[in-house]
Amino acid sequence: MALTLVIGNKNYSSWSMRPWLALKATGIAFDEVVIPLYTGDADRQRILDVTRSGKVPALVDGNVTVWDSLAIIEYAAERFPDARLWPQDVVARAHARSVSAEMHSSFMALRNECGMNIHRPIGPKKLSDDARANIARIQQIWTECRAQYGGQGPYLFGAFSGADAMFAPVIHRFRTYAIDVTPPVRAYMDTMLANAAFQEWTSGALAETLVIEKFEID
Amino acid sequence: MALTLVIGNKNYSSWSMRPWLALKATGIAFDEVVIPLYTGDADRQRILDVTRSGKVPALVDGNVTVWDSLAIIEYAAERFPDARLWPQDVVARAHARSVSAEMHSSFMALRNECGMNIHRPIGPKKLSDDARANIARIQQIWTECRAQYGGQGPYLFGAFSGADAMFAPVIHRFRTYAIDVTPPVRAYMDTMLANAAFQEWTSGALAETLVIEKFEID
Ligand SMILES: N[C@@H](CCC(=O)N[C@@H](CS)C(=O)NCC(=O)O)C(=O)O
Ligand SMILES: N[C@@H](CCC(=O)N[C@@H](CS)C(=O)NCC(=O)O)C(=O)O
Repeated sequence: MALTLVIGNKNYSSWSMRPWLALKATGIAFDEVVIPLYTGDADRQRILDVTRSGKVPALVDGNVTVWDSLAIIEYAAERFPDARLWPQDVVARAHARSVSAEMHSSFMALRNECGMNIHRPIGPKKLSDDARANIARIQQIWTECRAQYGGQGPYLFGAFSGADAMFAPVIHRFRTYAIDVTPPVRAYMDTMLANAAFQEWTSGALAETLVIEKFEID
Repeated sequence: MALTLVIGNKNYSSWSMRPWLALKATGIAFDEVVIPLYTGDADRQRILDVTRSGKVPALVDGNVTVWDSLAIIEYAAERFPDARLWPQDVVARAHARSVSAEMHSSFMALRNECGMNIHRPIGPKKLSDDARANIARIQQIWTECRAQYGGQGPYLFGAFSGADAMFAPVIHRFRTYAIDVTPPVRAYMDTMLANAAFQEWTSGALAETLVIEKFEID
């Protein structure tokens, strides 16, 4: 039986994008079920029927249900070792998990002020100091990873990993909010923008017509 | 060479408590280094010298540095399989990772309104609806886990696991803010309060004299 990944709107659901990309970019087969967010009780109940957290993403694999982007990536890394969702080297793997967990729990200001909205017309907006500090820290993470592992490939840890999946929505944020980035960060963004799975998610998002007004304010 | 866990003040640093308890409760040996938080640039630099995230906890194990509570627990689970930081059963393990990731990324209202402050005099405070919803969801998680795995032991997944470590600071929050809980939740809290490693952290916190004024407002 195939895996089923339950996700929200591709245009807005940054947390859904992460495990979707992790699976897709590493060739793990799955069916996707899209449940539009904030459309009312019926859709909300459809999510609750899968996970009592009431949030997407969630993955169903036979009798296993796992929810939350990072837990899904850990689950997939263990279930499909050949996908190499984490680096093989123990030092790099610890590093990849650290930055992934940092993304998972931090950068609130950036997340609040620059929500992922893939069809947003490109242009800057005024950001708080906290959001600016978030952007600086993310650029630092990406730059340090690629300086360290760059010899092994163009992603954060050489080959594509769960860490790239965790930061993927930030690529869209930096792009649509026209964030000023350093050349090495630009090079990493170009790598991600050229990734086939990343492009597939993006096209899917742009094909969506449902608009969530509260996410279209700026 | 022993592991070194870098943590903040035991009274306040809820994120530090999590991996500390995960290691201690499962018998993994480590040295601890306490760096007082918000005391100025020198201490801030000591954290930055270990992790560029600027945050505790961080674990150093030879040439491996891993930071963020959840990444440290994943690292330790892999490095010390006999500690069984995650349940052996694949369904239970996926469940444990899901609730741990949910704790790691959610419950902002509760975390903001009821900061961990172990020496706080016990008593209720007025909470927002969001904080109340967080409390309800956490009670639901604990109750469902123990209903499902209760036959195997008194912790969330039977034996002590990384999930208990991730929720441990919430035990102190529920206790000090005198949160009204159901009898099954009370039973789980009593299990945790009787855990030797939990008690060791708590005594350490109560022995601290450093007060951080901004965390003492209520
Ligand atoms: N920590 C979770 C966050 C999940 C999350 O917040 N999902 C949003 C969509 S991106 C959601 O389901 N919102 C619906 C709601 O809160 O009702 C993860 O990493 O998966
Ligand atoms: N997501 C991180 C959170 C770490 C965190 O916020 N640590 C706090 C102490 S509990 C800290 O180091 N604060 C110092 C600062 O922000 O300057 C984790 O899970 O470890």
